[in-house]
Amino acid sequence: AQEDLLLAAAYVSDAQYNRNVPFETSPRAIRLYYFYNHWTMQVAIYFFICVDLSLALFEEPALFPLPFLATSIAEVLCLTAFFGRLVHFAKVTPQMVFWKDMKNICIMVTIVLTLIDLIIYGSLEAVNIHSVRWSRALRPVFLINFPESRQIRRTFRSIRNTLPDILYVFLLFMFSVLIFSLMALKLFGDRGLQTVEGLPYFTNILEIAFELYVLVTTANSPDVMMPAYNFNWWYSLYFITYIIINTYIFMSVFLAVVYNNYRKHLKNEIRKLAYLKRHKMIEAFNILKVKVGTEFVVTEARWKRLARIVMPHISSPHLELLLRISDEGQKGHVDKMNFLRLADLLNIQVVTINIKRHPLEEWMPRVYQSSASLLVQRMVRHRIFVWVYDVIILINAIFIALDEKNPFISYAEWLFLSLYIIEILLKLYTYEPRAYFGKKQFWNWFDTLIIMAALVATVANTTIQSARKYNSQQILDIVLILRILRLLRIIVSIQRFRLIVTTLINIGPTILTFGGLVLVVYYVFAIIGMEAFHGKIRFFDPNFTTPDALVCGNPALKDSAFARDRYCKNNFNDLASSLIVLMELTVVNQWHILAGGFALVTHQAAKLYFLSFHVVVVILIVNIFIAFILEAFFVAY
Amino acid sequence: AQEDLLLAAAYVSDAQYNRNVPFETSPRAIRLYYFYNHWTMQVAIYFFICVDLSLALFEEPALFPLPFLATSIAEVLCLTAFFGRLVHFAKVTPQMVFWKDMKNICIMVTIVLTLIDLIIYGSLEAVNIHSVRWSRALRPVFLINFPESRQIRRTFRSIRNTLPDILYVFLLFMFSVLIFSLMALKLFGDRGLQTVEGLPYFTNILEIAFELYVLVTTANSPDVMMPAYNFNWWYSLYFITYIIINTYIFMSVFLAVVYNNYRKHLKNEIRKLAYLKRHKMIEAFNILKVKVGTEFVVTEARWKRLARIVMPHISSPHLELLLRISDEGQKGHVDKMNFLRLADLLNIQVVTINIKRHPLEEWMPRVYQSSASLLVQRMVRHRIFVWVYDVIILINAIFIALDEKNPFISYAEWLFLSLYIIEILLKLYTYEPRAYFGKKQFWNWFDTLIIMAALVATVANTTIQSARKYNSQQILDIVLILRILRLLRIIVSIQRFRLIVTTLINIGPTILTFGGLVLVVYYVFAIIGMEAFHGKIRFFDPNFTTPDALVCGNPALKDSAFARDRYCKNNFNDLASSLIVLMELTVVNQWHILAGGFALVTHQAAKLYFLSFHVVVVILIVNIFIAFILEAFFVAY
Ligand code: NA
Repeated sequence: AQEDLLLAAAYVSDAQYNRNVPFETSPRAIRLYYFYNHWTMQVAIYFFICVDLSLALFEEPALFPLPFLATSIAEVLCLTAFFGRLVHFAKVTPQMVFWKDMKNICIMVTIVLTLIDLIIYGSLEAVNIHSVRWSRALRPVFLINFPESRQIRRTFRSIRNTLPDILYVFLLFMFSVLIFSLMALKLFGDRGLQTVEGLPYFTNILEIAFELYVLVTTANSPDVMMPAYNFNWWYSLYFITYIIINTYIFMSVFLAVVYNNYRKHLKNEIRKLAYLKRHKMIEAFNILKVKVGTEFVVTEARWKRLARIVMPHISSPHLELLLRISDEGQKGHVDKMNFLRLADLLNIQVVTINIKRHPLEEWMPRVYQSSASLLVQRMVRHRIFVWVYDVIILINAIFIALDEKNPFISYAEWLFLSLYIIEILLKLYTYEPRAYFGKKQFWNWFDTLIIMAALVATVANTTIQSARKYNSQQILDIVLILRILRLLRIIVSIQRFRLIVTTLINIGPTILTFGGLVLVVYYVFAIIGMEAFHGKIRFFDPNFTTPDALVCGNPALKDSAFARDRYCKNNFNDLASSLIVLMELTVVNQWHILAGGFALVTHQAAKLYFLSFHVVVVILIVNIFIAFILEAFFVAY
Repeated sequence: AQEDLLLAAAYVSDAQYNRNVPFETSPRAIRLYYFYNHWTMQVAIYFFICVDLSLALFEEPALFPLPFLATSIAEVLCLTAFFGRLVHFAKVTPQMVFWKDMKNICIMVTIVLTLIDLIIYGSLEAVNIHSVRWSRALRPVFLINFPESRQIRRTFRSIRNTLPDILYVFLLFMFSVLIFSLMALKLFGDRGLQTVEGLPYFTNILEIAFELYVLVTTANSPDVMMPAYNFNWWYSLYFITYIIINTYIFMSVFLAVVYNNYRKHLKNEIRKLAYLKRHKMIEAFNILKVKVGTEFVVTEARWKRLARIVMPHISSPHLELLLRISDEGQKGHVDKMNFLRLADLLNIQVVTINIKRHPLEEWMPRVYQSSASLLVQRMVRHRIFVWVYDVIILINAIFIALDEKNPFISYAEWLFLSLYIIEILLKLYTYEPRAYFGKKQFWNWFDTLIIMAALVATVANTTIQSARKYNSQQILDIVLILRILRLLRIIVSIQRFRLIVTTLINIGPTILTFGGLVLVVYYVFAIIGMEAFHGKIRFFDPNFTTPDALVCGNPALKDSAFARDRYCKNNFNDLASSLIVLMELTVVNQWHILAGGFALVTHQAAKLYFLSFHVVVVILIVNIFIAFILEAFFVAY
């Protein structure tokens, strides 16, 4: 019976967390499955994924160089952990299912490929031949394919489903760009026009197509139009037509197609998840059911034991509450319909309304209930208290904006800090502390953390200052940022602002999923970029004005827009720099200058790297992000 | 009875065209109302609106200068026409309604203000004092407020309804920008950093706020970040945070709020329109009803006379068809339910399926039905015929891309032109011409017009060339564009492409409404811009390299990015140039350079003009445009 309960609890738990892993039902497999789902295992696997991904920081081209031996040993360790996790999974799931699941095949192939790459690279390195560590671009496979990354996989699936529709729009769009390129070549090619840099204007169809693609991203507007426009007023009509059709209409159509598929896909996923959840709950019910009268039910005792296995830390009142809901008629058993609701019931966060008294009241009731104390409490609860502190924040804002070298102002900082600390203490005196720091009290947490951090940092800074007679720049920066973040509190005072911010905070977790998705794509592009471009462009201190520094250490950049705009630090010489370049490419502006610079120091084909990044990140992922924000706001408003 | 019929027909007609003008029901008022709605009157009023708006082309600063007397006489004429239209409307509508309608008040006030402005400006001009023609910015009032511009007014209403929601998000967004500005001032202000141009970096809070606002539009990314990033790697995190919160999240929230309101508003409008339509049809029914048995109906004869008044050019079969639908039981009368459907029935375009024979078949049946003729027809109808022409188009595309100075290629052009003409002739021989040029046959029309135009232009060009021994550049350009547009035909061959293009063509009319809306906003901003900035920046031929030409004729622009990028032609010196500058501002890229240039030649406050343009056009109107495209594609897909 205990084994039946464990199996049923595994089904319920899977339903509760939307896990969809088929597992064997032998007692040993179930125990292994519990171990597989244990949080320590999950944390461990995420730790190894993080280590594996962050190896790129230490490998050539490195931000913090480590010898190849060290990084390769770390990588082999990670691979072992991944393999161990996979073996564990293989023991849990039926063999047939295991070998049919693409995720497992992917992980295994990646492990093997990485090992091969490590061996080849290592042996070549031993004889001093430098080769390419291509398998590093495969590392995100581990992040995507472990069962824990359901959310990221779901978004990838959504993108994959969108691809056919997007593809046709993209082809039509490219066709339109080509037609316009041909037109531009014929209209402007023979005019002998020149760009601002004195280069020939629109004479080569490939260059024209690239420029017009850039115009779709608006990055070279209006410069690309100026030579033709200067030549003849009427030619601006060509560019206006192009911008309306390609920049406005096509880009909106991309968003429309992505959004439409996103919604369709979301609906399907939710329907499928609901179906699977119900299915698992029925399995659990069938294991535990007994016949009472004409219907099958689960007895109260069994139901309680099940709930305690699924949620070991559930409190007794919480369990009683759930039972009261599930067994409305108090018949001593739970019927099928109510049993199926259990997974959802467990997911509901029960806020235990705090009827507990304030600790101070229990500790010294006389003092806490004295008239002076009650007056303080009434004062703190009053609306004027909030207003007074809003005014204090505004005055504080003005003080921050003023020059802080004035000693009077830096003393005022201490005053404000004490005022904020007093506010928190007064509130903790008035409100029950456990309620004040409840799970949903975002702003109380925010306030207290900001103030405590500011206090610690300010004290630390003062100590360092008086001891070593110098300011630590990092600590000063942190103190400053904390000081300004305090001003955010003003948002809470305005109802409409709070509504918007709450919506944004609520979609926070899903934005993190996007973070994962973006990380995967960025990582792959960063590795490719580092292999292709590292060392080609170097950064010199901005005060250097040697000829070498002015062309980022590469004579090919002479007279280029890249060097003129001093973009030398936008290079692929380590992971951090690469990610920042990719972020700049995502923002799109000036991406053609960056692409042009890297094409000059390597080959014109390098522009393909930047074009594909634009298609993947801006046309697909950013549009999915926008679609997601739109959907979230439609639900909230 | 005739008067009753006229009144009822007026109601039906209003329901058919969604007109919502309350009119008096006296016979004279009804006759005036018919006259008011006559298409000649509508064309006339649009003609005068166009003349009034285009006056800005001829007034100082003018594209085609005309004396003040000429333009003012034209303007007074237009005002008279508008006033006449208003008087006409006053005689049609009940007095109470007329004076309560804001639209009429708006028009009258604008007429009076314009007259006052004309008189003041004229008298000052007479004594040689130059003043401002401020009333020109009011001209779009006429375009918006006449009952014919329902669509534009609806979009404006939609924007107005969105404003409260947008305002709160905007305030929160501005608050966020200010907080970040304060942070930037504190973090970077004292570092002694410099921009690429050698100017101090982030030392003034107002300048920082402007730069950060520009960063939201992405126009100064990554330049705004580079000095801090060059100084210290970690400061890039500040900018990344800023971009994620303000550029990505807030801008998406703006789109979400606009889109959400747009949808809500659209639903309400449609519901209201349906209600009003039904109401008018009931009015019409009540006028015409007679009692037959227990129910009120409209007799067949009356119904027919009504339909003939509403649609004078309706064909007899069409009328019979409508009657058959409305009087299903053939009882000789139309009941209430069927009568109410009339307005919608009249709006349905009846495509008379063509069972007519080909004219050639009627004219010479023997020849047309001969086996050779039938073979030709079968050939044309065959799929291979389409494929052959697809291949011809592709070959044509290659020939166009090649250099046309080769005489062989220019002869080939004639060959292609003849092949296309033969194709059209063959199709006209095979298909019934009236069916071929049916209303819905967009691509047949497109094909034929392009080919005919190319034929005319090519012949014209050849004639000019052989007669005067020189090429007309304009005609050559047109021939070229037509030649390339022919390639668009390839779209028709691919089903998925056709679907996308059809959706785009179907939303064409509504995009025109947007054109009207954009025109109104652009016009107002252009007039203000011309008054504020005309003559400050001048354009010199790009080959000029005199010091004056290099600073666009204004020494204040020395060393500015505006002059360095050679943006001299982006000025407000006439209406056309102004509209093009506004278009560039809508595309957003480099708008801060444009704003900076105009601020340098006038005052820093000029940036407010560009900021407000961004808020109105990009945040509001472009987002409504995107919302509209999204909605259209959701309905189509
Ligand atoms: Na841009």
